[in-house]
Amino acid sequence: MKRGIVLASGGMDSLVTTAIAKSENDEIYLLHINYGQRTQDRELLAFKAISDYYIPKDILILDLAYFTQIGGNSLTDRTIEIPTNQLSDQEVPNTYVPFRNGNLVSIAASWAEVINAQSIYIGAVEVDGSGYPDCRKVFYEQLEKAINLGTKEETNIQIKTPLIDKTKSEIIQLGKSLYVPFELSWSCYQSSVKACGVCDSCLLRINAFKRAGLIDPIPYAVEIGWTD
Amino acid sequence: MKRGIVLASGGMDSLVTTAIAKSENDEIYLLHINYGQRTQDRELLAFKAISDYYIPKDILILDLAYFTQIGGNSLTDRTIEIPTNQLSDQEVPNTYVPFRNGNLVSIAASWAEVINAQSIYIGAVEVDGSGYPDCRKVFYEQLEKAINLGTKEETNIQIKTPLIDKTKSEIIQLGKSLYVPFELSWSCYQSSVKACGVCDSCLLRINAFKRAGLIDPIPYAVEIGWTD
Repeated sequence: MKRGIVLASGGMDSLVTTAIAKSENDEIYLLHINYGQRTQDRELLAFKAISDYYIPKDILILDLAYFTQIGGNSLTDRTIEIPTNQLSDQEVPNTYVPFRNGNLVSIAASWAEVINAQSIYIGAVEVDGSGYPDCRKVFYEQLEKAINLGTKEETNIQIKTPLIDKTKSEIIQLGKSLYVPFELSWSCYQSSVKACGVCDSCLLRINAFKRAGLIDPIPYAVEIGWTD
Repeated sequence: MKRGIVLASGGMDSLVTTAIAKSENDEIYLLHINYGQRTQDRELLAFKAISDYYIPKDILILDLAYFTQIGGNSLTDRTIEIPTNQLSDQEVPNTYVPFRNGNLVSIAASWAEVINAQSIYIGAVEVDGSGYPDCRKVFYEQLEKAINLGTKEETNIQIKTPLIDKTKSEIIQLGKSLYVPFELSWSCYQSSVKACGVCDSCLLRINAFKRAGLIDPIPYAVEIGWTD
């Protein structure tokens, strides 16, 4: 029995990753984590809609208060402003939540060991992504080794990052070919009714749809200027 | 400025580790995590007493509900019985909380990145310990690599496991030489007033004191038969 856990934020990348995991496993398990980020209620709604669509064997929704306690980033600390209308070049943007993905994959590893899942899927994107250090392929390769050294002999877990080398528009195209319901996903870092259209995450998403020649089905608070 | 974070459970090994970290750093930071284990209230009391003794620069006390949600171990699942009067031989005992230490060190890494700490200390013991896979030296070596690949370029974190190769009685002797207040620590897995004296953790602790030729200052519910 092939079992895969998917880290499902409610965003576009994890949505496409869920579709891939669904096609590669007998059972999928969705792990969603509220970590105190500004739009966590909206992301949870997106997650639930996506979960209803893909019918996982089980879901786990966790609340982590500690990223707010630790701070040091604009997603969990409301006193740090989220950058808008700019995609950072080389520097790590302040929306980077310190070692967040290391934490999330570790939680998934604990769950995987208990339910005998062989794979953990995460929709991290390295090249065309956010510039976050915990989205790098080398990181996941090393973390996979660490997980297998830190769990029981009989536990064998692969970290699968099917999107890591893809551009954002390739991800959209792949999602389209897998008939993913993009309208159910949510990416915006700061708004919950209409996506702001100006934060890092909105900009990456909008650019991706534009380059893929498609129109994003979710509502935006600003005029995007889609062209068919 | 040398800053070290110590994972401080309130137990004996992390107590000795705290003393070592204190001697090696300009500032220490203590991280204590309630993860739903049976004796978490008692461990928290022990942690607070130890914290008052060593006067860290800062402390962080976190509540993690998810190990209870994930289950699969006798520390967080009250329906699984804690083994007594036996130290497991080769098999991993059911008190192993799946990949717990991987999770705890990941949290410490997030905090370390924010406060610019260079070291994370954990009092894991491999040879003479619990038999938990997340107490192995190779695991921490690998996890350190992963953490440094998953955090910012300027972040450089060492995982320090000063007790990993020591026997439990060597740890007691080392603690004695560092004048650690053993009476403040708590190790028992199942009781909070007097230590049960029969769980894995009590047995390891009692044997350690006996082999070191010392008397454990904490109260036990059963007659231990200390010999000077």
